[in-house]
Amino acid sequence: MAADRKPLRIAIAGLGTVGAGVIDVLQQNAEILAKHCPRPIVVTAVSARDKSKDRGLNLSGVDWVDDAAKLAEHPNVDVVVEVIGGSEGKAKELVEKAIANKKHVVTANKALLAHHGTALALAAERAGVGLAYEAAVAGGIPVIKAMREGLAANRITQVYGILNGTCNYILTQMRETGREFADVLAEAQKLGYAEADPSFDVDGVDAAHKLSILTSVAFGVAVNFAGVRISGIRNVSAMDIAYADELGYRIKLLGIGRQTPHGIEQRVHACMVPAASTIAKVDGVYNAVVTSGNFVGENIAIGRGAGRGPTASAIVADLMDIARGFILPAFSAPAESLEPAAQAPVGLHAGSYYLRLMVVDKPGVVADIAGVMRDENVSLESMIQRGRSPNDPVPLVFTTHETTEAAVGRVVKRLSDIKSVLEPAHVLPIEPLS
Amino acid sequence: MAADRKPLRIAIAGLGTVGAGVIDVLQQNAEILAKHCPRPIVVTAVSARDKSKDRGLNLSGVDWVDDAAKLAEHPNVDVVVEVIGGSEGKAKELVEKAIANKKHVVTANKALLAHHGTALALAAERAGVGLAYEAAVAGGIPVIKAMREGLAANRITQVYGILNGTCNYILTQMRETGREFADVLAEAQKLGYAEADPSFDVDGVDAAHKLSILTSVAFGVAVNFAGVRISGIRNVSAMDIAYADELGYRIKLLGIGRQTPHGIEQRVHACMVPAASTIAKVDGVYNAVVTSGNFVGENIAIGRGAGRGPTASAIVADLMDIARGFILPAFSAPAESLEPAAQAPVGLHAGSYYLRLMVVDKPGVVADIAGVMRDENVSLESMIQRGRSPNDPVPLVFTTHETTEAAVGRVVKRLSDIKSVLEPAHVLPIEPLS
Repeated sequence: MAADRKPLRIAIAGLGTVGAGVIDVLQQNAEILAKHCPRPIVVTAVSARDKSKDRGLNLSGVDWVDDAAKLAEHPNVDVVVEVIGGSEGKAKELVEKAIANKKHVVTANKALLAHHGTALALAAERAGVGLAYEAAVAGGIPVIKAMREGLAANRITQVYGILNGTCNYILTQMRETGREFADVLAEAQKLGYAEADPSFDVDGVDAAHKLSILTSVAFGVAVNFAGVRISGIRNVSAMDIAYADELGYRIKLLGIGRQTPHGIEQRVHACMVPAASTIAKVDGVYNAVVTSGNFVGENIAIGRGAGRGPTASAIVADLMDIARGFILPAFSAPAESLEPAAQAPVGLHAGSYYLRLMVVDKPGVVADIAGVMRDENVSLESMIQRGRSPNDPVPLVFTTHETTEAAVGRVVKRLSDIKSVLEPAHVLPIEPLS
Repeated sequence: MAADRKPLRIAIAGLGTVGAGVIDVLQQNAEILAKHCPRPIVVTAVSARDKSKDRGLNLSGVDWVDDAAKLAEHPNVDVVVEVIGGSEGKAKELVEKAIANKKHVVTANKALLAHHGTALALAAERAGVGLAYEAAVAGGIPVIKAMREGLAANRITQVYGILNGTCNYILTQMRETGREFADVLAEAQKLGYAEADPSFDVDGVDAAHKLSILTSVAFGVAVNFAGVRISGIRNVSAMDIAYADELGYRIKLLGIGRQTPHGIEQRVHACMVPAASTIAKVDGVYNAVVTSGNFVGENIAIGRGAGRGPTASAIVADLMDIARGFILPAFSAPAESLEPAAQAPVGLHAGSYYLRLMVVDKPGVVADIAGVMRDENVSLESMIQRGRSPNDPVPLVFTTHETTEAAVGRVVKRLSDIKSVLEPAHVLPIEPLS
């Protein structure tokens, strides 16, 4: 057997859904892989918490290692596949040690990369090994490859997307059924679409992990998770979703990375997008990533963002690249050159906004509110006040022309001083996407 | 300078929109390329028809060669970029000679690949050079890379898409304005969205070129352009577009490659797709490619399918891959293994159909037609007969349940024998896409 047909020997750390999925792909698609990959990919070692558990996997001939970190020094391993998860602890220890031992790493761990991506990329480059993570962002959609290779001739100006399938599923269900967040979340948990502790998903943290990685690849800067301005979907109400429809929008949790005159802006939040935009129609558990390049224009990629099959598909594609010797700097530019980028101050974000207030229905309220907006130089685009219910709480909805986040913040603060305004304003940015 | 930092020297054959666009990208994005590409990409030679023409390009230091084929033997050229076009003649001569002289080839020429792809891939592999053509299919969308690398772990079961921006623009305009094909085509020609001789586009040939390439990459078989069943959009009428809307569909020109129990099916034709499907909403000059893999599920990529910027973006990405040493078999599997695949007989295509008849409005017509369908075992799903105009020609629309193309063909033939049926039936397949 010629040297370059030598099997690529892999270790899998973690045999949950994804780790088992990788073994599935390697076994079920063996014929396809043999045709498309110059080297056989062979699992030589695995590690998982419970050896006795029946996973329905054929692991004969595979070395079982109790301590995952030991895979990093296993003599018969060329690549460590890390699907343990978590930004610290065993996953971090394993990946660092594997790189130190000159083993390639393939991981689906967005938290790890969001927190330690730049340092790991630097270590991998110095060790001359690959650090591949297609599965970490948008699951089965090959977005990292698209940005790092397919669109690599472009200056990327913006990348945004639906990066969390759980949130997208919940928002889609809320819209389709008119139910409130808590209700739909409980159901999603029952169906297995949301975790028992849903915080990472519904509070936007998972999407922010992914966004920080995308931003780094897109703009060739250090990964800066701390620079992401994060909010989730807990505060989106059925009422806001209904008003969005009325105004010609949909509400989506987006991660947005953008070059602005003030620096790089990274935001994860629920926002209104035009109902006619492509992203508005990406529903349920699907993810979508939209990349704008100075020559290619807008590219949109849509697919399943999570799950056993899509995630395993991405991991095995990374393994095939390593088998081919296709190893690139993890974040597009060489890690040495990844500088921390200036982050645009949050308050300078320019855009339109949706504000929903709960007010006492009595004469003069609108005038008071409009006066505050005028004082803060926030220009109104539309107002909706449906129904009448004198002296009862009623919703009052405004959309603004382009203004700044700081100005809207001042408006919201001053509105809370008006006696007829009963709750803090519900605010959602409006994103004029195509 | 280390050996692997040596400039990659390229020759561009053809300085039309695309060739000039490549020079634009290399110059305007020089800083980006320097960051992302291990070797500088340098234009050392060019060839075009008219040397005296002012193209607004800085070609100082670049060798001008009158006969493009001579670029194949140029001593200072590592890669030939072929953007002359056409399946025969100079483009073919140049590409063959370049490969014979062990120069890599990057081309945007779908006609050349559709007709000679397998032979060229074989020659390139034997010569140990790359044959890259991302720009040939769906312009700026990196679909070849996605299929050949990003989704490579999957058994691909189906690939389809909107592969011709001119047709998509015309169909979009027809729907939005209610105008007829000839009208909209004439306007598109004025606006530069359609060629003076529009046949390659509107008769489906260009889309078929692209589909035959996609099919080969997707299924690892020899390129088989002759196996594509082709029809275009000339026969789509404003009336059909209106009925499509009424029935909950849109009319799109799709290229569809599919594994079926009878072999590989390759079809390019106008068809009805559900109005709620993602592909239905891809309008204007945009292209879209949908790939289904056995682990990843459905992946959708949308972007500009033609034009200077997107095409040049794809060509330069191919050049960057070559500079990195990332060279793959052109059609995914090694060319030696690309066998001609069994093509599914056209008549066996299974699906639903839309039939529009022009009939004389008199009692008994529907019964006669329904009788023919019954005799041929074609089951009706719906019927629309709007308005009454006794003894005048009126449209009569049927949709069928799943049947075969052969059965529909027999129905159409027998309907033409009914005296009250005034024209050959207008038939469109219905594609139940998601």
